[in-house]
Amino acid sequence: MLSRSTIMDSNSFSVLEATGLEPELLARTERRQTLLSGSYRLFYKKPVHLVSGKGAYLFDADGEKYLDVYNNVASVGHCNEKVVAAVTAQLKKLNTHTRYLHDGILNYSAAILATFPNNITKAMFLCTGSEANDLAVRMAQTFTGKTGIVVTAEAYHGNTDLVSQLSPALGSGQTLHPAVRVISPPNAFPGDSTKSGERFARSLQSAINDLNRHGFGFAAFLADSIFSSDGIYPGDPGMLKPAIEVVHQNGGLFIADEVQPGFTRTGEAFWGYARHKLDADLVTTGKPMGNGMPISGLFGKDEIMDSFAEKIPYFNTFGGNPVSIASANAVLNVIKEENLLNHATQVGALFLNELNLLAKQTALIKEVRGTGLYIGVEICDPDTGEDNGKLALQIVELLRENRILTSVCGPNANVLKLRPPLVFSTSDLEWFLTEFEKVLRQL
Amino acid sequence: MLSRSTIMDSNSFSVLEATGLEPELLARTERRQTLLSGSYRLFYKKPVHLVSGKGAYLFDADGEKYLDVYNNVASVGHCNEKVVAAVTAQLKKLNTHTRYLHDGILNYSAAILATFPNNITKAMFLCTGSEANDLAVRMAQTFTGKTGIVVTAEAYHGNTDLVSQLSPALGSGQTLHPAVRVISPPNAFPGDSTKSGERFARSLQSAINDLNRHGFGFAAFLADSIFSSDGIYPGDPGMLKPAIEVVHQNGGLFIADEVQPGFTRTGEAFWGYARHKLDADLVTTGKPMGNGMPISGLFGKDEIMDSFAEKIPYFNTFGGNPVSIASANAVLNVIKEENLLNHATQVGALFLNELNLLAKQTALIKEVRGTGLYIGVEICDPDTGEDNGKLALQIVELLRENRILTSVCGPNANVLKLRPPLVFSTSDLEWFLTEFEKVLRQL
Repeated sequence: MLSRSTIMDSNSFSVLEATGLEPELLARTERRQTLLSGSYRLFYKKPVHLVSGKGAYLFDADGEKYLDVYNNVASVGHCNEKVVAAVTAQLKKLNTHTRYLHDGILNYSAAILATFPNNITKAMFLCTGSEANDLAVRMAQTFTGKTGIVVTAEAYHGNTDLVSQLSPALGSGQTLHPAVRVISPPNAFPGDSTKSGERFARSLQSAINDLNRHGFGFAAFLADSIFSSDGIYPGDPGMLKPAIEVVHQNGGLFIADEVQPGFTRTGEAFWGYARHKLDADLVTTGKPMGNGMPISGLFGKDEIMDSFAEKIPYFNTFGGNPVSIASANAVLNVIKEENLLNHATQVGALFLNELNLLAKQTALIKEVRGTGLYIGVEICDPDTGEDNGKLALQIVELLRENRILTSVCGPNANVLKLRPPLVFSTSDLEWFLTEFEKVLRQL
Repeated sequence: MLSRSTIMDSNSFSVLEATGLEPELLARTERRQTLLSGSYRLFYKKPVHLVSGKGAYLFDADGEKYLDVYNNVASVGHCNEKVVAAVTAQLKKLNTHTRYLHDGILNYSAAILATFPNNITKAMFLCTGSEANDLAVRMAQTFTGKTGIVVTAEAYHGNTDLVSQLSPALGSGQTLHPAVRVISPPNAFPGDSTKSGERFARSLQSAINDLNRHGFGFAAFLADSIFSSDGIYPGDPGMLKPAIEVVHQNGGLFIADEVQPGFTRTGEAFWGYARHKLDADLVTTGKPMGNGMPISGLFGKDEIMDSFAEKIPYFNTFGGNPVSIASANAVLNVIKEENLLNHATQVGALFLNELNLLAKQTALIKEVRGTGLYIGVEICDPDTGEDNGKLALQIVELLRENRILTSVCGPNANVLKLRPPLVFSTSDLEWFLTEFEKVLRQL
């Protein structure tokens, strides 16, 4: 067993833990156990055997339809036709690496760079968010000549050796990097974002002081702007300004990890950090970039990218290949054509509003936090008001029984993570709310 | 500029170095320079602007046809119809992660595990060879409780922070890991593979002794069995046996990096290390696995995978998704149906033979080394017999002028790297030989 219940695994089961499964599901989980490493975990005590998807819906082998309120990767909808068409067309034409000239990567780079504040001028493409964060940290260390990195208490930044060491969410089995310092997330509550932001900035300064005293120096603050693994703390726009001022006053870089908040997910702005009107030095992307095709990006300032390029060669065989780029380009076009920024902002606001109304009717919900289509519902013991991960997990399982797919996050695994594909509609929202209310009444 | 001419970049140009380009190519390279980081390098002084591919052929914007004698990624042929069809079908159906049950990953795992010697029983899927090597090294360190790694002098194992530190090929700008020891490749020559293998094993033992004396202990020997970046030294089958005995006698693991030699590339066996009849503890794959779709694999023994899974959670969002798996499955089927193992063995033997005949006619070729469709042609000064990277590069450029795509490798960048798609035919071979002879006569 894992050394602690971790965020990554709080709604994840080893096949060994599955009980009471129907013969067909049991056979599949057993086959999985035989063939795949023990690192593979499944969602739900009764795993879901999926065969197809469309928009915000997933379908299992029995033809049952599920509402996807969890998957941000299929951001413009499962099996989006425009993305499928673009990828298919490119697959038939050419797929190779970036040491030959190709217009796809140039056109997409121009289009995606235009979505950033002006100081972000150069693009690189990789395959996963982990690779992007790994390279961003190396670049920050090379540029500053320092090694110290600051992350938040339950941060998760990926699965390579380096970024695993910057991911306290992985639990006590994973050693943290000697030059990493961990600070509490801003824990912003409605109304006191300004104070939270200032408190957070002071705590960041203390961590930097400590890195300096240990001789590491300060290279970068690495964070996603909604603190997703910490339990989703979006804060009011501008909350993070004091912290990023501290970063820059101390000669460090702000690496905006946009793997979770990016691509209009948080509403209000194309990028989560832009919602706070911040200047990032490096920006990393991943999950939703290609609607499921493995592609990620690292975007940044000329001088930072140049300092690395001059010192160390970097080549990523699959990174920026014409097919992955075709998927990313199609995703970007869909986001623009269907104005998903506006959609995420509006449906997200409605979603938050409805959940807040619901929270007034039940002592099970302590707080609702979110922005755009990234929402956390904090579940507590209705009598004591204390965080209750067990109840949250029960809700997740009951929702799954009712064909609603969600999961949990936060240090106590008591925050329902609601993060549907961006195409989630108001009628999808109604479907979710109906089932959610039903489940809450069962508890 | 880079701190030294490295293997990775010996046929790679910054757009700043491009000269005498036609206006259209110049505009594209300039646009590239504006949009992409300086890490992006191009092949050839006159870069190739590709628009399509088919089998072993690539086509530029003017419709010119190139013979691809370099790209091992599009292993079953550029735009292979069966792979395109399989990927397209899955794209339309479902693409999601591995926390739901899906038959694709199970069926493929069973099929690919069947290609390994019996001790390799468990599968994991990632997106790049770098990710696979990064995780393999972490697993070896976790399992053995030691940190020391041994690699060869010009090894390249990927681009993450950890594996970059195990990749001396990246040049002096890249710091090596404190617990890595670098040994010379076996430098096998026809006829004395046995002696080379024994020498190599002794040098490996010395490196392990040194790791022990420094308190790191020995975790793993990480190598691809043809020493591709070292200049291609396949050796006779069995050459590596003494070295791997030393690995196991010292309680370490052998990580077979099959990113280059795997999937029948080296002929004689499905896996490069299996050609030497070795027992690997962990096997990593990458490039050709999905014919260009970003997918990689890590395969290994139960107990090694379990020891990691019990300690540290690992999840790879895109790793093993149904679409990537569909590509890998189609590639494996094509390899079997078209008996590409046999094809690579036979065409490779013919290729080697023809090159050896050619070598007798010119003092420019010092040695031809290779197995299957992975062949190195060592270029030397015809008067002194000394390694000559400048001449090799000149050959690469002249071949490119004649629409034959190749590159160079080895510490002195004087080894022509001939590594065509596996579907490379005997008439393709004739085409290559005609142009190659012509180019050699020009020098």
